[in-house]
Amino acid sequence: MLNNHVDSLQKNKLNIMAEEKFRLESDLLGELKVPVDAYYGVQTQRGINNYHISRKKMRDYPDYIIAMAYVKLAAIQTNHSLGVINDEISGAISKACQELIDGKLHENFPIDMMQGGAGTSVNMNANEVIANRALEIMGHKKGEYQYCYPNDHVNCGQSTNDVYPTSIRLAIIRMNKNLVSSLTGLISALRYKGEEFKDVIKMGRTQLQDAVPMTSGQEFSAYANNLEEEILNLERNVKLLHEINMGGTAIGTGLNAVPGFAKLCAANLSKLTGEPFVSATDLVEATPDTGAYVSYSSALKRLAIKLSKICNDLRLMASGPRCGLNEINLPPKAPGSSIMPGKVNPVIPEVTNQVCFKVIGNDTTISFAAEAGQLELNVMEPVITESLFESLVWLSNAIDTLVEECILGITVNKERCYEMVKNSIGIVTALNPYIGYKTCTKVAKEALETDRSVYDIVLEQGLMTQEKLDEALNPKNMLVSHKFIK
Amino acid sequence: MLNNHVDSLQKNKLNIMAEEKFRLESDLLGELKVPVDAYYGVQTQRGINNYHISRKKMRDYPDYIIAMAYVKLAAIQTNHSLGVINDEISGAISKACQELIDGKLHENFPIDMMQGGAGTSVNMNANEVIANRALEIMGHKKGEYQYCYPNDHVNCGQSTNDVYPTSIRLAIIRMNKNLVSSLTGLISALRYKGEEFKDVIKMGRTQLQDAVPMTSGQEFSAYANNLEEEILNLERNVKLLHEINMGGTAIGTGLNAVPGFAKLCAANLSKLTGEPFVSATDLVEATPDTGAYVSYSSALKRLAIKLSKICNDLRLMASGPRCGLNEINLPPKAPGSSIMPGKVNPVIPEVTNQVCFKVIGNDTTISFAAEAGQLELNVMEPVITESLFESLVWLSNAIDTLVEECILGITVNKERCYEMVKNSIGIVTALNPYIGYKTCTKVAKEALETDRSVYDIVLEQGLMTQEKLDEALNPKNMLVSHKFIK
Amino acid sequence: MLNNHVDSLQKNKLNIMAEEKFRLESDLLGELKVPVDAYYGVQTQRGINNYHISRKKMRDYPDYIIAMAYVKLAAIQTNHSLGVINDEISGAISKACQELIDGKLHENFPIDMMQGGAGTSVNMNANEVIANRALEIMGHKKGEYQYCYPNDHVNCGQSTNDVYPTSIRLAIIRMNKNLVSSLTGLISALRYKGEEFKDVIKMGRTQLQDAVPMTSGQEFSAYANNLEEEILNLERNVKLLHEINMGGTAIGTGLNAVPGFAKLCAANLSKLTGEPFVSATDLVEATPDTGAYVSYSSALKRLAIKLSKICNDLRLMASGPRCGLNEINLPPKAPGSSIMPGKVNPVIPEVTNQVCFKVIGNDTTISFAAEAGQLELNVMEPVITESLFESLVWLSNAIDTLVEECILGITVNKERCYEMVKNSIGIVTALNPYIGYKTCTKVAKEALETDRSVYDIVLEQGLMTQEKLDEALNPKNMLVSHKFIK
Amino acid sequence: MLNNHVDSLQKNKLNIMAEEKFRLESDLLGELKVPVDAYYGVQTQRGINNYHISRKKMRDYPDYIIAMAYVKLAAIQTNHSLGVINDEISGAISKACQELIDGKLHENFPIDMMQGGAGTSVNMNANEVIANRALEIMGHKKGEYQYCYPNDHVNCGQSTNDVYPTSIRLAIIRMNKNLVSSLTGLISALRYKGEEFKDVIKMGRTQLQDAVPMTSGQEFSAYANNLEEEILNLERNVKLLHEINMGGTAIGTGLNAVPGFAKLCAANLSKLTGEPFVSATDLVEATPDTGAYVSYSSALKRLAIKLSKICNDLRLMASGPRCGLNEINLPPKAPGSSIMPGKVNPVIPEVTNQVCFKVIGNDTTISFAAEAGQLELNVMEPVITESLFESLVWLSNAIDTLVEECILGITVNKERCYEMVKNSIGIVTALNPYIGYKTCTKVAKEALETDRSVYDIVLEQGLMTQEKLDEALNPKNMLVSHKFIK
Repeated sequence: MLNNHVDSLQKNKLNIMAEEKFRLESDLLGELKVPVDAYYGVQTQRGINNYHISRKKMRDYPDYIIAMAYVKLAAIQTNHSLGVINDEISGAISKACQELIDGKLHENFPIDMMQGGAGTSVNMNANEVIANRALEIMGHKKGEYQYCYPNDHVNCGQSTNDVYPTSIRLAIIRMNKNLVSSLTGLISALRYKGEEFKDVIKMGRTQLQDAVPMTSGQEFSAYANNLEEEILNLERNVKLLHEINMGGTAIGTGLNAVPGFAKLCAANLSKLTGEPFVSATDLVEATPDTGAYVSYSSALKRLAIKLSKICNDLRLMASGPRCGLNEINLPPKAPGSSIMPGKVNPVIPEVTNQVCFKVIGNDTTISFAAEAGQLELNVMEPVITESLFESLVWLSNAIDTLVEECILGITVNKERCYEMVKNSIGIVTALNPYIGYKTCTKVAKEALETDRSVYDIVLEQGLMTQEKLDEALNPKNMLVSHKFIK
Repeated sequence: MLNNHVDSLQKNKLNIMAEEKFRLESDLLGELKVPVDAYYGVQTQRGINNYHISRKKMRDYPDYIIAMAYVKLAAIQTNHSLGVINDEISGAISKACQELIDGKLHENFPIDMMQGGAGTSVNMNANEVIANRALEIMGHKKGEYQYCYPNDHVNCGQSTNDVYPTSIRLAIIRMNKNLVSSLTGLISALRYKGEEFKDVIKMGRTQLQDAVPMTSGQEFSAYANNLEEEILNLERNVKLLHEINMGGTAIGTGLNAVPGFAKLCAANLSKLTGEPFVSATDLVEATPDTGAYVSYSSALKRLAIKLSKICNDLRLMASGPRCGLNEINLPPKAPGSSIMPGKVNPVIPEVTNQVCFKVIGNDTTISFAAEAGQLELNVMEPVITESLFESLVWLSNAIDTLVEECILGITVNKERCYEMVKNSIGIVTALNPYIGYKTCTKVAKEALETDRSVYDIVLEQGLMTQEKLDEALNPKNMLVSHKFIK
Repeated sequence: MLNNHVDSLQKNKLNIMAEEKFRLESDLLGELKVPVDAYYGVQTQRGINNYHISRKKMRDYPDYIIAMAYVKLAAIQTNHSLGVINDEISGAISKACQELIDGKLHENFPIDMMQGGAGTSVNMNANEVIANRALEIMGHKKGEYQYCYPNDHVNCGQSTNDVYPTSIRLAIIRMNKNLVSSLTGLISALRYKGEEFKDVIKMGRTQLQDAVPMTSGQEFSAYANNLEEEILNLERNVKLLHEINMGGTAIGTGLNAVPGFAKLCAANLSKLTGEPFVSATDLVEATPDTGAYVSYSSALKRLAIKLSKICNDLRLMASGPRCGLNEINLPPKAPGSSIMPGKVNPVIPEVTNQVCFKVIGNDTTISFAAEAGQLELNVMEPVITESLFESLVWLSNAIDTLVEECILGITVNKERCYEMVKNSIGIVTALNPYIGYKTCTKVAKEALETDRSVYDIVLEQGLMTQEKLDEALNPKNMLVSHKFIK
Repeated sequence: MLNNHVDSLQKNKLNIMAEEKFRLESDLLGELKVPVDAYYGVQTQRGINNYHISRKKMRDYPDYIIAMAYVKLAAIQTNHSLGVINDEISGAISKACQELIDGKLHENFPIDMMQGGAGTSVNMNANEVIANRALEIMGHKKGEYQYCYPNDHVNCGQSTNDVYPTSIRLAIIRMNKNLVSSLTGLISALRYKGEEFKDVIKMGRTQLQDAVPMTSGQEFSAYANNLEEEILNLERNVKLLHEINMGGTAIGTGLNAVPGFAKLCAANLSKLTGEPFVSATDLVEATPDTGAYVSYSSALKRLAIKLSKICNDLRLMASGPRCGLNEINLPPKAPGSSIMPGKVNPVIPEVTNQVCFKVIGNDTTISFAAEAGQLELNVMEPVITESLFESLVWLSNAIDTLVEECILGITVNKERCYEMVKNSIGIVTALNPYIGYKTCTKVAKEALETDRSVYDIVLEQGLMTQEKLDEALNPKNMLVSHKFIK
């Protein structure tokens, strides 16, 4: 690993040398070569060189770059309005931002998602790309920063400490829409099945033991309703992300942002994105705060927990084909075994379960990262970002797959379901109001011990008339609350 | 362990035998001796015999018993209104419930908090205690269940599957009030300190590196504001607990509850408790659903994460007395060492940190339990209950301790804080708007390398006039956004 | 909560005042009243006053006090040998330690398990109790520390930073023996069932789908073998606890311990306890290190994961009685429902599952606590202790309960198990070597679609002779590897 | 997301259609087009189509493919020896496996790492690639499976349920070597620094409070020793992966593997890889068992916890430059702020911390997956694989980066460290043996309150002679245990 890593670093440097196609840039640490065509600059190059951890790059998440561009656009609009940046420069910067929003130049965001520096590399990457593109727009060459400086102009009145969390928030808000859309599809599919199976009577089970009858439709509708709450929960929690700290600059005191920046920038960002951003009332508090991420991650975790439970149920009800519950059939997606011919496995719920476990694990990661904040900043935000993005994308993908490749094709074995109800002992519960819990207990016990039916025993012992018994034990009458006449 | 356990079981049985002071009761599994004076009955006795896990009992949590009594009271009122239980019995049951609400008979809830059966033992414990007390009220003896039967009367139209989660919810709602009250105290204390330290200028730090100036007051106020959001977050999440499933009975179909039970029972419970309970729209969905617990646990976790971060900060700022940051002093609570004389440690923040870790661990427990629900019920609710109760009580206690034994006694070392700011390099940030980021970088670099002050270097190099420099570097001017005149 | 807490503090203080039965002691922070009969002193009293978090006390864990006493005994023996403490004092201290080992005076350890100070309260509690008892033994009164001082004599050459972790380690080693004994009982019970069910042919299932035949005995034996590895794993990890840091004193440099103390104390402790303790090679490293706790907690977690999986299986195989797999029967322990007569639930596996979840959550707590160590000490050890002790006790109790109340009473439904195998499609796997995977796939597909048996289809299509087919499809021939003759 | 996903599926299918360059293959579910040049076949194609979750593919992990190839090679050697597969076919299959081992054809493993089916897609992917390559070697065309069938020949005597876990185990064993090599580099670097700083006296701190003196060298050496244990711990746990279940086939009964397969295959795999694999004694137990993964993940977590603690320390000791501890300097890797000129942050420890948090989160994921095993198989193994691989690669990369970009360049501020010791109060501890804990306490208290030195106060009060005091307070004498002469 060590050698590979060094090699790749070496190669990187050699390549740049070899082609002799670079420009020299400098910063606090000295000079560094940057590929001549790159829109990014020296600090991005340091980020590229420093971090070789995951293979995930900022450019793998277009929503992330677009969000950052919106933030930079709102900031330059604000600085322009407040008279801090002149027309020409702010015009060029705005245009450059818009290009990023339109999906251009994204290949210029090559830094590893796993990074130190609390997002400074990401912010500087954006500052540099925007500055260089703005320079071109103004008729200058890349690197002629005297006309438009990444820090003094693009980053004017800003700090990574306000820009970075604000852009993450917008990115999550955007990605959450995808997730909600996927989830909406799943809910529709489940609701559709709930309707389709509404007349299929089956045995309800608590603690895996036969309980009382219900319909398969009630079960699927319940799943739909259960997940419906998750949309509400996601939206309840995504709202927390609308509070931003633009204008706080370094630690929330607002040093170097002119008065009015915070509120105006929030207003501008709202207008640009259609999202109701507000400026945090206490920017010193807001700067290191990761509460909104923790809450949103909890919402993802709750969704994962519910989704996993539903997939567990589907796999259980589809167990069989002959030695299991065998109540429902999932559409076959692959031969199930390299050795057992004809076997078909519930592969789609299975992969969904596993995605859920990853989301739950990511929540642990985020808890650690959030707790590790110190004093005026939480430096662990990049791993929060990486984990939330991963959870968001994987969940969306898994849910889409679950809908298309599984839920829509589920069928139910109506006959078998009904047979189980008819032979069950649990239906004795319906007789409580007529003959009391204690007598029912005796009937149930006898049924179990003698392997006979509740119906026969009640009749035989003359506990109820056949007419009343037929009425009481009709499974259809057990599906809802109803008056019972003794 | 095995032997001890058997011994204790044995002893328990022997004791009951020995005194010959028992009554015989019976259930599905046969006869069992119950202490003659006990208000509980056979099923509670089975619960006592079955579970020897933790030393925690239901009776250790009065809120839990009171909540259960309210639920039973609301149910009997409902059954009475709907004509299912007659005046005499419902009157006696109501009176018995009221006694529990008033704190009586709590010693009759001796079952281990860690239990199987999805709460059936807890529900039956309540049913039995209430039935036996009602029997006495009606002039009968304990155990004469023909006059008032735990299942047919006290539990009428109910199942553990609706009673148990409803009572847990009310218990959490009650305990949450305690937590919010503790938290309110902490916020007040922090806000008080924020005011007290509002003129103490100190160095802000990001990534543990010197950043720019701020006041100690801003820091403490930020903690207050940060935790203020936790009250909102707790209340946002506790609201989810107001949706209850009374009337769903076994699996949410409502079998054996008469029509109207669900809504009326929710209304009765609301009236009795002053809490806005509503009946879930889909009782089949609501019955196995643990989403509200997961969310509430996430809220506790978020509070724990924030609280732990604040305690970390306090310990860091109080590091010293001579070889640390030494910005603040925590009140000494104990000699800090068995070997190092004079050492005083931040013991109160330390214990708070540890409580937070336990709360975070309990959230993992709850995630596992919630994911483990199967089909029409989640049987793992007792450990969810145990963990939530533990987190609630420990957090309240830790916060109270933190306020009284630590926060209120904190003092700040104003001189030292100011010295650090004056000598810092970070203040160069304030010169960005005047001489640009690039020039500032050079000044900062030189200051660091030559161990000199930013002030001297800027003057020496004639970058700014002394007047402007004095103005710009006045720490007071760095504490908020402000106009800068070049 | 606030008021209650204050009240109890108040009451505590008032009580002490009221009875006027106290003695005055003093320390760094000043004077404090201690109950006149208490063996503990001023620092313990501060610990009592400071921590009101959980209701768990050190005295709830006799192994903990005994372990601490052994450490103190080994230390005084060492100091005596090395000529640091004279005969009289070391004799009295040794005698006092022995009394604690013999179970006496344990009521004098009343501090909350949840505490700050990295164990200083616990160490000082022991130092004070031992000093006061030693004083009595020497003919002095409690509190006459001029004759035997808690710090200078009992704690001589020691610091909380070496005494506390050493005593925790010994306590865990002792409690681990209980757990291993419980686990051994479970393994025996499962192995017994494996033997009992060795001829019961049943369907094996992978991914909850019918796979190929096996015996119920193979399943239970596999559980036994699976848990057998946990004994090895616990013992592999408990070994790490044998490395101790006595002699390191404050931060591992050994300041104030005389040369030779470390090794001799480890040797003495080994002799006293029969455990092979060794002195860590780098005491500076060993002092803040929590690696051994993390590993041991991981071992408990691994056991919990396996145990939970086994309980899940038991509950699944016992699902029914008529609408589930219904392969096995768990002994009924309680009526299963307050509404459904005759229902019996798998309450013992259920409570075991929940204990497992708590153990897994405690592992998260311990991860947080271990990561929070800073510089020369990990101050979060008390919550590591509390969590490990809880996991140890709960697991032992749950396992004992599982053995006695569930496993030993399990019966199997042999007929039903065999019927399922006979009707299954999965047995076609056995024909692969004869007719190939592809042909088998076709047979399986047809069987499933036409609801017929594999046997009939193979015969009908003349794919094999009846004789060979009978041989190949005999379930008994599928239970082990065997030669197949084409 | 839904639309995108459907689009990409659609496009995939269209592309294949468009080029008309495919061959038709079929399986249980019917026919499917496979790219004509692909070495993989129909079941791999189904895997490609089914799973669009992460962007990670099997081919991103060469060790994984190589491990699988070794397993297949060992299996074909075994089948050949046992007379089950003839010379020609086994020769061709062996050659194909060797090519994979040599790094060829890896692009033919394109299935998403996140998948259902318990690894069947992975095993079939290997079976198909090897079969098709073997066909070519024998002079046939891809897809002419009548000459060499993926299931009957390549997978002969095997099942995914034994092949998949065995290959994962070998892959982890290989990747663990990389990690150990990285870790070894880190330990060397820390040890080197320990030596370099061995004469730098500094203040030791416990609970962030000044304790007693030590050297910076002791600190770095302790880190090295602390991590040295992690190599042992990784190796202790990687050993558990040497137990394999080849020969167990579907559920461990060994159906369709000829007698002797299990042991011989383990022996062959050992010979091929040089790793001491053994056949599990109970294959039914071994098949669903995930204990070894859980343990290995725990070992990774323990390493992550320790590494994170060390990075926390580095960041703390490097805090400053003027308002922190400022004991050490980390090499600057990037300008630290977009707004604060001259700021340099500890970015490399920061990214390492975050990688550690991800590893800890992955351990939670693995706990969930391991607990979710049911009956004869754990279907959640793919996410265990994905998470372990991620943790392994990220940790290796982070450690390499930490060594090269941080540790090797650390310098220490010797003067400042010494100044702090000299001015400290903690050194009073060294006087305990001379004047007792109680008197030392008074001295310390006075020093703190009067802001004077311990030295002056002791002298002034005539507690010790100057000569003795000089000797006792010489920091060098505090670094190890030593005799003290009163």
